[in-house]
Amino acid sequence: MNHAATTPQAAQAALPAAMLQALQSLLADRCSTSQALRAQHGADESAYDAMLPDVVAYAQSTEEVAAIVQLCRHYDVPLIPYGAGTSLEGHVLAPYGGVSLDLSQMNSMLALHAQDLTATVQAGVTRKQLNLEIRDSGLFFPIDPGADATVGGMAATRASGTNAVRYGTMRDNVLALTVVTADGRIVKTGTRAKKSAAGYDLTRLFVGSEGTLGVITEVTVRLHPLPEAISAAVCSFPENSAAVNCVIECIQLGVPLARVEFLDANGVRAINAYESLSLPEKPLLLFEFHGSRHGVQEQAEIVQEIAASHGGADFDWATRPEDRSRLWAARHNAYFALLQLRPGARAITTDCCVPISRLAECIDETQIDCENHQITYSIIGHVGDGNFHVLMLVDNADAAEMAAAEAVNQRMVTRALAMDGTCTGEHGVGLHKMAFLIEEHGSVAIHLMRVLKHAFDPDNILNPGKIIAWDEPDS
Amino acid sequence: MNHAATTPQAAQAALPAAMLQALQSLLADRCSTSQALRAQHGADESAYDAMLPDVVAYAQSTEEVAAIVQLCRHYDVPLIPYGAGTSLEGHVLAPYGGVSLDLSQMNSMLALHAQDLTATVQAGVTRKQLNLEIRDSGLFFPIDPGADATVGGMAATRASGTNAVRYGTMRDNVLALTVVTADGRIVKTGTRAKKSAAGYDLTRLFVGSEGTLGVITEVTVRLHPLPEAISAAVCSFPENSAAVNCVIECIQLGVPLARVEFLDANGVRAINAYESLSLPEKPLLLFEFHGSRHGVQEQAEIVQEIAASHGGADFDWATRPEDRSRLWAARHNAYFALLQLRPGARAITTDCCVPISRLAECIDETQIDCENHQITYSIIGHVGDGNFHVLMLVDNADAAEMAAAEAVNQRMVTRALAMDGTCTGEHGVGLHKMAFLIEEHGSVAIHLMRVLKHAFDPDNILNPGKIIAWDEPDS
Repeated sequence: MNHAATTPQAAQAALPAAMLQALQSLLADRCSTSQALRAQHGADESAYDAMLPDVVAYAQSTEEVAAIVQLCRHYDVPLIPYGAGTSLEGHVLAPYGGVSLDLSQMNSMLALHAQDLTATVQAGVTRKQLNLEIRDSGLFFPIDPGADATVGGMAATRASGTNAVRYGTMRDNVLALTVVTADGRIVKTGTRAKKSAAGYDLTRLFVGSEGTLGVITEVTVRLHPLPEAISAAVCSFPENSAAVNCVIECIQLGVPLARVEFLDANGVRAINAYESLSLPEKPLLLFEFHGSRHGVQEQAEIVQEIAASHGGADFDWATRPEDRSRLWAARHNAYFALLQLRPGARAITTDCCVPISRLAECIDETQIDCENHQITYSIIGHVGDGNFHVLMLVDNADAAEMAAAEAVNQRMVTRALAMDGTCTGEHGVGLHKMAFLIEEHGSVAIHLMRVLKHAFDPDNILNPGKIIAWDEPDS
Repeated sequence: MNHAATTPQAAQAALPAAMLQALQSLLADRCSTSQALRAQHGADESAYDAMLPDVVAYAQSTEEVAAIVQLCRHYDVPLIPYGAGTSLEGHVLAPYGGVSLDLSQMNSMLALHAQDLTATVQAGVTRKQLNLEIRDSGLFFPIDPGADATVGGMAATRASGTNAVRYGTMRDNVLALTVVTADGRIVKTGTRAKKSAAGYDLTRLFVGSEGTLGVITEVTVRLHPLPEAISAAVCSFPENSAAVNCVIECIQLGVPLARVEFLDANGVRAINAYESLSLPEKPLLLFEFHGSRHGVQEQAEIVQEIAASHGGADFDWATRPEDRSRLWAARHNAYFALLQLRPGARAITTDCCVPISRLAECIDETQIDCENHQITYSIIGHVGDGNFHVLMLVDNADAAEMAAAEAVNQRMVTRALAMDGTCTGEHGVGLHKMAFLIEEHGSVAIHLMRVLKHAFDPDNILNPGKIIAWDEPDS
């Protein structure tokens, strides 16, 4: 596409009629220019205004994806892969129009190799569907970003979530990918071997590339044995730093926590109201322990002791599955619960990640910043990884309020970077964090990323305008 | 360098005198053309004949590396990064001459962040040195490829080894790198945050790139808490497949083995002789368990039960550190022990990795192949990952014998690939596995790797002729 076109939407060319005809003859009714579908595909879960594609295309096979990519290349039309639309940084928006390639109909389980602890799925399979499909195998797929995202989308954004502290992120749990390249060829990036030293790590290159280097159509993931025992616990703390310091000590001692989630007092208040719970409205940690029956008990005892030494109180067990489910449902619904703190407002959800020794300080300073600017907010996070979110409730018609929230976000990222952290632990870059990415990596690394993008997608067809700007800043 | 020059050594141009003068004025006596040093740096631990560089240069800082890379680029001279020279596939050989850049004097510990479980070291620090430097921190660096390789070399080859089944490989344990690019610029590829979704994964791209995309000068690694308890055990099995099936069952049940090593009867015979041990000369598994005192005991009991169900006998505990050390020293010295099976012979050490359900079959067929061709061999491996080695003892002056060994290697790789495995689990590609890499990945993936190489090293200065050929096969 036109490399000089750097103003989103302004430079959007009309979709060539021949391109639309070709798409229609390929996909028949799996291709639509309806306003409703375009609007749905031009928005995500962020507070961004929608940016609509010209057409929505539903692929059902890798070969169809390849054909669509070839059409886009031939007609110089942008292509934006779309999974479940649950991104938070504008990944699926269409700043230059083009084709939104919806992969949700590519939702077949292709293979389960239970003995090898691997599964291969089409990109449109969601994580919940995957876990349902393998429910009789004694295995599970641990990555859980909250939303029921597609496995392809999770790979494309290097997703993680509540279980990452124990099981790693998509970076660690993807063994191999099938990818359609910008020239419409199909490549398999790995094998089902658990490890390999065979050449450049194309798998890790596509994981987290947000659809800008290729279109992921199939994913082979690692599965994990369901633990013999699971238990959960909650514990309240007098202040944020006490909770965070408790987690730091657990991690440093090597306690193999399966999950450890932090909610500030605002978060607890919101889920109490939303879920009719009566948790103390103080900073809270939710723990989950996986292991043998004895191992789980042992972990929990160590954690209880550490928590007590940090002023943790009301350490409350949930060994029954239904109690555990209730707690985790509350955590998963925190987003919706928090929206009720200010009905009618839009949520801006930020994301950063710091070395764990700096986490308490980073959260505290961010909290003070929110308080100082009268923002309705909550801080929640996957604190075992040093990763946290600030959810801010804003009136997105109020420019001053939006600017104040964005300034909090900006300062949080600058703070995280000064602590040798990253501008995004799990949400990705999309449209929104492109400036932060430069701040984080510096000009040489950004140059290398641009070299990669130009080498893999020389016509700038694949999700253009995301992650990095096409042009060198001085050109 | 000359892209048409594809015949190793034949096309080696003399080093320009001006280049040598410039190197000497930069490094003074840390730059040498002595035959002895060139011979040392033109060989590795493989059975390959040496291929000598023109000059050996010792860098002491990232800035010096950058200056050397700029000289190489200016004078169109190949540059081969060199760590401890313990590679097994010809990675450090100089098929086109040039500069062997020895990083062993870059051996400073730059930072230990014990609270964050991270350390940053110069590339020339060896893994044993690193563990010595952090011995008072309660932490350790788990990656152990056997040899006392440099951390930079281990990153460059995506090394793993005995602990990978529990702690992952270098892919998983490198957080960030400092790299000198082909144009002599310095880039930092990441932060100390435990996870990140911030842009393309440059860290994972350089890990395993074998010095062909950039020169790694500093490495930030993850450390792990020393377990409260460690115990080890050995167990003998009636046949290879019984031992391997025992491991498969342990992995499938999620037993968190820290190490599980397999030695065939030939291997056991060799270490018995070399170490004056009296292990039953049958297939053997060596286990190591890490965890709490109870956890370790529990793991071992489960494993003992599984082993018994596969005919495992003589399950022998080693809880005392000295007994444990003795066992693992025997495993680590297996290479030297095996050399004694045929004094005067050279060792060819192969490497492949398969999905674990196919491991017993792959090992059995490989064993039969060795037996059928009257090769002196042993099969040993990191079987928890599906990774194994065949060590073959050959007279490298006997062309027929070398060809027979290479044919065993070839068939082993073909067998592994047919099982959806990889041609190398941990040794890397170097010179020797370039043809296998094509067989494994296919033409589109190899094309993408070549696109990467051309984009990152347009003048083909960095370790030319390794991993992939410069030219497209049809060009």
